[in-house]
Amino acid sequence: MKEVGVGIIGATGAVGQRYISMLSRHPYFRIRKLMGGKSAGKRYSDSTSWIIEGDIPEEVADERIAEAKPESAKECELIFSAVPSEVAKEIEPKFASSGFFVVSEASAHRMHDDVPLMIPEVNSEHLALLKIQREKRRWKGGLVTTPNCTTTGLAMVLKPLHDVFQISKVVATTMQAVSGAGYQGVPSMAIIENVIPFIKGEEEKVVRETKKILGKMNYDSILQEDIKISVSCNRVSTLDGHLETVYLETKDSISVEGAKNALRSFSGLPQRDKFPTAPKRPIIVREEADRPQPRLDRLSGTVPGMSVVVGRVRKEEGNALQLTLLAHNTIRGAAGNAILTAELIAETGYLE
Amino acid sequence: MKEVGVGIIGATGAVGQRYISMLSRHPYFRIRKLMGGKSAGKRYSDSTSWIIEGDIPEEVADERIAEAKPESAKECELIFSAVPSEVAKEIEPKFASSGFFVVSEASAHRMHDDVPLMIPEVNSEHLALLKIQREKRRWKGGLVTTPNCTTTGLAMVLKPLHDVFQISKVVATTMQAVSGAGYQGVPSMAIIENVIPFIKGEEEKVVRETKKILGKMNYDSILQEDIKISVSCNRVSTLDGHLETVYLETKDSISVEGAKNALRSFSGLPQRDKFPTAPKRPIIVREEADRPQPRLDRLSGTVPGMSVVVGRVRKEEGNALQLTLLAHNTIRGAAGNAILTAELIAETGYLE
Amino acid sequence: MKEVGVGIIGATGAVGQRYISMLSRHPYFRIRKLMGGKSAGKRYSDSTSWIIEGDIPEEVADERIAEAKPESAKECELIFSAVPSEVAKEIEPKFASSGFFVVSEASAHRMHDDVPLMIPEVNSEHLALLKIQREKRRWKGGLVTTPNCTTTGLAMVLKPLHDVFQISKVVATTMQAVSGAGYQGVPSMAIIENVIPFIKGEEEKVVRETKKILGKMNYDSILQEDIKISVSCNRVSTLDGHLETVYLETKDSISVEGAKNALRSFSGLPQRDKFPTAPKRPIIVREEADRPQPRLDRLSGTVPGMSVVVGRVRKEEGNALQLTLLAHNTIRGAAGNAILTAELIAETGYLE
Amino acid sequence: MKEVGVGIIGATGAVGQRYISMLSRHPYFRIRKLMGGKSAGKRYSDSTSWIIEGDIPEEVADERIAEAKPESAKECELIFSAVPSEVAKEIEPKFASSGFFVVSEASAHRMHDDVPLMIPEVNSEHLALLKIQREKRRWKGGLVTTPNCTTTGLAMVLKPLHDVFQISKVVATTMQAVSGAGYQGVPSMAIIENVIPFIKGEEEKVVRETKKILGKMNYDSILQEDIKISVSCNRVSTLDGHLETVYLETKDSISVEGAKNALRSFSGLPQRDKFPTAPKRPIIVREEADRPQPRLDRLSGTVPGMSVVVGRVRKEEGNALQLTLLAHNTIRGAAGNAILTAELIAETGYLE
Repeated sequence: MKEVGVGIIGATGAVGQRYISMLSRHPYFRIRKLMGGKSAGKRYSDSTSWIIEGDIPEEVADERIAEAKPESAKECELIFSAVPSEVAKEIEPKFASSGFFVVSEASAHRMHDDVPLMIPEVNSEHLALLKIQREKRRWKGGLVTTPNCTTTGLAMVLKPLHDVFQISKVVATTMQAVSGAGYQGVPSMAIIENVIPFIKGEEEKVVRETKKILGKMNYDSILQEDIKISVSCNRVSTLDGHLETVYLETKDSISVEGAKNALRSFSGLPQRDKFPTAPKRPIIVREEADRPQPRLDRLSGTVPGMSVVVGRVRKEEGNALQLTLLAHNTIRGAAGNAILTAELIAETGYLE
Repeated sequence: MKEVGVGIIGATGAVGQRYISMLSRHPYFRIRKLMGGKSAGKRYSDSTSWIIEGDIPEEVADERIAEAKPESAKECELIFSAVPSEVAKEIEPKFASSGFFVVSEASAHRMHDDVPLMIPEVNSEHLALLKIQREKRRWKGGLVTTPNCTTTGLAMVLKPLHDVFQISKVVATTMQAVSGAGYQGVPSMAIIENVIPFIKGEEEKVVRETKKILGKMNYDSILQEDIKISVSCNRVSTLDGHLETVYLETKDSISVEGAKNALRSFSGLPQRDKFPTAPKRPIIVREEADRPQPRLDRLSGTVPGMSVVVGRVRKEEGNALQLTLLAHNTIRGAAGNAILTAELIAETGYLE
Repeated sequence: MKEVGVGIIGATGAVGQRYISMLSRHPYFRIRKLMGGKSAGKRYSDSTSWIIEGDIPEEVADERIAEAKPESAKECELIFSAVPSEVAKEIEPKFASSGFFVVSEASAHRMHDDVPLMIPEVNSEHLALLKIQREKRRWKGGLVTTPNCTTTGLAMVLKPLHDVFQISKVVATTMQAVSGAGYQGVPSMAIIENVIPFIKGEEEKVVRETKKILGKMNYDSILQEDIKISVSCNRVSTLDGHLETVYLETKDSISVEGAKNALRSFSGLPQRDKFPTAPKRPIIVREEADRPQPRLDRLSGTVPGMSVVVGRVRKEEGNALQLTLLAHNTIRGAAGNAILTAELIAETGYLE
Repeated sequence: MKEVGVGIIGATGAVGQRYISMLSRHPYFRIRKLMGGKSAGKRYSDSTSWIIEGDIPEEVADERIAEAKPESAKECELIFSAVPSEVAKEIEPKFASSGFFVVSEASAHRMHDDVPLMIPEVNSEHLALLKIQREKRRWKGGLVTTPNCTTTGLAMVLKPLHDVFQISKVVATTMQAVSGAGYQGVPSMAIIENVIPFIKGEEEKVVRETKKILGKMNYDSILQEDIKISVSCNRVSTLDGHLETVYLETKDSISVEGAKNALRSFSGLPQRDKFPTAPKRPIIVREEADRPQPRLDRLSGTVPGMSVVVGRVRKEEGNALQLTLLAHNTIRGAAGNAILTAELIAETGYLE
């Protein structure tokens, strides 16, 4: 694969830092431009509270942040966007119409009919929406979104179970890490020795995004999958890694071993074609009674943070099952999944 | 009410300290004897890592801990037991057969047919089992148990909803405080910046205890209530206060306002007869989007820690509802509920 | 004492909330006006993330916040200011020149020659600067400041030791609670499972404020006391309570018992004249090896949070001593000390 | 270097796990035997709460733990001991007299005249004591100790400054991670939202061990260095990494730049001869105002956890300096320093 120049909008935040960290060692994506709003004009290292272990990669530390507009990104083909939703709404279509492929973490466009909402292992076929999108909007580039950090882990685990057992109902409770809210998102006075049982807008996002991701293509849009989903989102004082308990009912008879087999053998295009950021196993099933744990398991797998870890799979009365899952929210739930999606775009030939 | 001499077995632990703290200002229970195992013979203040704000009440600080046997407790009528289950199994029947009324926090005897499992506001009529127990076992005293700290909050909230709407299914996820495992129970290396998604034996206890507590008397035992209950228990790094998300389905049509009214108007014998440890409202319903929170709300109400706080009541598809509840695990979930149960025993005339 | 109307500027923050909480039960200060900047025009309960246990006192919850200017405060005589320093610089002289007595938590005017920097037990005689200030500035009111939250505990403990043993050198290291930086001050991502070994400007403040507080009046200003002071300030993940280790050298021979006696017997005008917010003992000395601890001891004493707790007093080689102290940073270190200072102003007759 | 068989006593604890993790990729040390007390007879993975990121190295997971006695260790030449002091006292001399070289983390023998207390960069010449020890005790093997986890960072930083500027006085305050007390050492109820201002025996150890490590060989023992040292030890809620503030006075004139140069250029035998576990720079000096921070900096350097990180170097009145240092307590402060010491023993020819 030839080298692809990429730009990052919103590179100073918690997710932006993950982009930098993961792209600094990527085989064919090269960071060519950092863009921002308030930080425009400053050196990257001066405008960032770097929170990832180790130092800022040298090649970006002294980089000057440019204003977030298509003109700044001439050397790039692909743009990773990690900006707040209200900014994304304005800015991302400008890049897409100017010929860039935008992979966006923002919620602004996720639910639009012609915008794919991607987890490459789960719904790579949804990328076909790009063709419709470009026709309809007369864009030279394209806009692809990735799900909310809480949706990603859930949808990945539901997918193989739904394929085999037909899920009818899901009740999930999340215990989400503070990095999900961004560096300034959760004041320490709010969360020390506490749990906050609410995250604004999160539950609605998880429900509707999961239904779209699991949905089937129907001509020029996606039919939301018919599953009842109820979610309770909570913030706990972990740094990274969203933990979720999941209760689910299926139409077909389900067993613990059947479920574990479906989860363990799950794999998709990224694994088949060995994308650089694809973990060997998208889902790791653990047998210990007390795993997954955020601090111990969030970086599991061959590409740290890209595998979802499942444990405590157990049968409930009727066609019902409980399990606990853990997904690294700024890697699989954000930057990592976006990079994998970009790899899918590149491998599928959209950048040629 | 005349003064009642009480003894405490297991007074040095996290729950034992709550007993001491709450009983040190009780209108008619007087602590006459502290009993223990390894700590027997030592001064209370020497064998306790006191973890409650403020100092050890003066009247017990210098008290010498006696061996836990009926002979030590001559000045007492009532015994509060906060010992581990395997100790309780041996020791509590000895006290009961010697004429003491034992109120036990241990799980050892909770599920026995002739042993009441009490939350005074919820199932005061279950106390009638005592008569059967005394006949059957030929005990001069009696043994009454109180539920697991996680069960208590859940059963209190389900009760009024079940009475009005007939609950058929419950899916609950807990985020439990470290004090629930006792002072030495959770090493800091296990829980700092982490969640442990498993508490040994806890889920089974919550399921079966809730069904017993909500069950109806049937001659000489209690019929377990027919509700499907699925529970996921997690340990988080809070000090006190178990937070629980609850999804429930009802046979009858349910609304948010109907549910809130049922919860708010819930009250029982302890409120009617104004027991000293009865909070004015057993259940407090909050309207803010982000409450209850353990640190802010666990000591709510007129008797701090005795009210369960409910928030986030919201409707789901079908006859289904979600809510979040918080119960102080060492007060309402342990010492406080046991003291209220002892008040029920006293007020009902069993001690005369 | 007749009722005194007071206003609060900056009432929504962490310190402002302590003012509200403490003044809501004060015998003669009555809150008559809440003032603010961005929050002006809003209801208090709408513009505050209330973080103190229990709910917002009813009498202020619905209060509308006024703009922070003298015209808003007609019903008040005394103004408590808890605004940032750059705001204080502008606003406080306006109130003072308009006839109000301002007691300020801000650092803006602390080091001015004619501005008293008060800890009522330590330097009540410094209040005499008010006379000079009013003459010099031709103010009808006056401006009195209170020290940085870290200075207060240190200066209170040094005072009785300095009086008896003549301190020549102090080396202190602080472990400060997050509330010291205000509600939004410390992001959780910065402090969870971490220590931040730096607090901007704090060390310089502690050094120069301590020397002023311990200094002697000299005509119309205060001679900074000649003590070498070195300080290292750290932020740890506690909510309230600044813990400080102190090493000190004295000119006179010092012993552990002598030091403890000096600390225990320390008392000032507020104790002599029984000010409402004066704790019985300004300094509590504990004998246990592992105290004071922030969570267990920060609310010690007869007026919770107003006593400094000292422990681990131990002798070092030469005329040197080590000890550990704990002061509640938003009570004794802020709102409480300001209220006690206001009581001193009132009792001294300045408001008549 | 030929392969050296090593055994580990006390392999299941927090430090033992670091040994396993670091030795599993060592170029010439091969783990041949795990030994323990209560865990003897069990599989390693069954008797360990593995707390290091990633899984237990496969080669030891199924290993059966042997009883800790010389007979168990036939395939080993070198023994790493991570047992409690009272066990070490009995067991280590048995191994040494049976011909093994024991490198011990325990405090039991650290202060004996003929026992080296090693930080290879600081006092490699002290290893010469081994010759005296073997003569005097008629041992075929030998016993070498490594310092307390808090001493190590301090002594490493003092060494280059003492060599250049002659330190006369040190005042240090520590903020120590919970792993320093072992997995079960600090209950979460003790440390959540708290600081414990005391660690039993720690301050005395730091003082006397530092003086020995910095001391000079004098015939057959070491003269304790004449420096006044005062230490205050605190436990904070970090997982790994002891942070220490240090105030020091020197006989010679000292400057910030001079101190930084001495620290940065510090290096010893392990660097010169490129020992496998030697970091390129034993001391890393950072210039940012708010570093080192435990979570961000504890794994700095070319051999993660083996470099001490220093920041906030600043001048105080007179010949005095302040700085903050961070040392990874279970790596440089324990297992890593012991492995480096074993490398020194091996490279010096003692194992031939």
